Amino acid sequence: MKTFEEFLSIINDGIEKLDFPQEPENFYAPVRYILSLGGKRMRPVFTLMACNLFSEDVSLAVKPAIGMEVFHNFTLLHDDIMDNSNLRRKKPTVNAKWGNNIAILSGDGMSYLASKLVAESPQEVKNEVLDIFFQTALEVCEGQQYDMDFEATNDVLLSQYLEMIRLKTAVLPAACLKIGALIGGADEVQAQKIYDAGIKIGLAFQLQDDYLDNYSTPEILGKPVGGDVNEGKKTVFYTRMNEVLPDNEKQEWIKFYNDKALGFSEKHVKAKEWFAKYKVDVYCKDLVDFYYGEAYKILDSLNLNNISVLKNFVEKLRVRIS
Amino acid sequence: MKTFEEFLSIINDGIEKLDFPQEPENFYAPVRYILSLGGKRMRPVFTLMACNLFSEDVSLAVKPAIGMEVFHNFTLLHDDIMDNSNLRRKKPTVNAKWGNNIAILSGDGMSYLASKLVAESPQEVKNEVLDIFFQTALEVCEGQQYDMDFEATNDVLLSQYLEMIRLKTAVLPAACLKIGALIGGADEVQAQKIYDAGIKIGLAFQLQDDYLDNYSTPEILGKPVGGDVNEGKKTVFYTRMNEVLPDNEKQEWIKFYNDKALGFSEKHVKAKEWFAKYKVDVYCKDLVDFYYGEAYKILDSLNLNNISVLKNFVEKLRVRIS
Repeated sequence: MKTFEEFLSIINDGIEKLDFPQEPENFYAPVRYILSLGGKRMRPVFTLMACNLFSEDVSLAVKPAIGMEVFHNFTLLHDDIMDNSNLRRKKPTVNAKWGNNIAILSGDGMSYLASKLVAESPQEVKNEVLDIFFQTALEVCEGQQYDMDFEATNDVLLSQYLEMIRLKTAVLPAACLKIGALIGGADEVQAQKIYDAGIKIGLAFQLQDDYLDNYSTPEILGKPVGGDVNEGKKTVFYTRMNEVLPDNEKQEWIKFYNDKALGFSEKHVKAKEWFAKYKVDVYCKDLVDFYYGEAYKILDSLNLNNISVLKNFVEKLRVRIS
Repeated sequence: MKTFEEFLSIINDGIEKLDFPQEPENFYAPVRYILSLGGKRMRPVFTLMACNLFSEDVSLAVKPAIGMEVFHNFTLLHDDIMDNSNLRRKKPTVNAKWGNNIAILSGDGMSYLASKLVAESPQEVKNEVLDIFFQTALEVCEGQQYDMDFEATNDVLLSQYLEMIRLKTAVLPAACLKIGALIGGADEVQAQKIYDAGIKIGLAFQLQDDYLDNYSTPEILGKPVGGDVNEGKKTVFYTRMNEVLPDNEKQEWIKFYNDKALGFSEKHVKAKEWFAKYKVDVYCKDLVDFYYGEAYKILDSLNLNNISVLKNFVEKLRVRIS
């Protein structure tokens, strides 16, 4: 069984060795650029780890794993256009550096570069891997659409929020795990369990992001805390508040949450008072733990004696503070 | 052998029956909308015709054929954002109707809907069909990038222009033909010949578009003639002019071509005088005929007794006036 560090270096080496054409320069330079910005490489590492659960040799999973990372970066690239973001990982975004048109087109290209890499799966599982990939890619787009839809309404239920993040965030790590497992030789039941665990991990991961956005510190987070509240984002905090608030306070809460005139830190402090009063902070923390717990249960039910590398990796995600 | 009308109705029926989910509405409504705008359906008809050259039964080619049409519409959707276009086929574009963000995202979704459909190819040829599709999709993006690059420079050679339209326009019909042929049971040599013929047809088709943009009439074209000249687009006319002009007239020509102050019809009339003086109009017409001729030669070399349906369809394209 390989270690996390070994998996990570396989992925980073593989990404560095991706041999894109030189021309057209304005098409491939943004692709190289966004892939060079780094990141956790969580998704492709999942693919290799899941493969390694069932096969000593993970080499056949490397290209598909990198394909999943290329896909992920494609979605980040297009998300940055849609959000009009200028910074990603403290560097200029592709749209900030090259403009929206090049960013749209390079992203489109990456979606097919990703498909090409994922299609380099072993023939025995290629059909299923591609089915999973195409379906997952579509679902990620659907999730992004729901997220955009939520911006225009105050009426978002917690259940709708959870479904949105399942699509936008959770299906991708789940698919990465399942694809790796299939390439490693898992049977259908095992592969499905891994997928289900991946969904729980993905949900927990996003809910944790929501939590840290309110309760981390700027030093640790690398950006101001309270950003979600200040943007009026529909998060687990917002949707849970809507569930637990007595009717007579709901109007006041929604007015407060949409208030653009409040100072950044003033609004965040006040929001945390609301959260504390209705124990929404505790609820969110518990929900994170619940989903990680569910994931562990599923992983344990696989009865694999080498599950610890994957579980330790997930545990690192669970205890992260930024 | 089926007729053109039969192929077209198979495609239109198939597109109508595509069963997209209802939700998220803002994601699937634009997909349904752009596919409902119609168009020549030239590409999927090519796929069915090429299949029918080698197999009586074309049913296995229908889903991949429609996938190629979905892909084509995805590129139109994103092109309209990049060009900031408000009208397509005399209807509002997706970006005009829903805004850029939804247009980006629905396009992304369509790229995967297309992949799913193309992947519904028979198992025996699925690997090759997908390889062709992914590679073609990438090349179309590369072509679009060259087209955008050309906007920022006056130094575009005719050879560079031809390579740009090969990528942006010609590889897609070529791939449609090859995929259909492979599904129908063509051998590698036959499939490659069909592809090569498709490249010639695609080049001829685009050069003809350039020609008609200058020499059709607004009534027939459905839009003002001379649009390319007025936008200063780098077309076969522009690049050929650069090749044949004596050095002492080149500056004057480039200044004229980039002049935004000239009246629309004044600029077009004057451009046609330049073209006539250097016989660039004749050159373009001859080039169109040359490429169609090359395509016919390749198709004839296949020695198939049922080639006439495909050739008649190409002939219809060749003699089109709009």
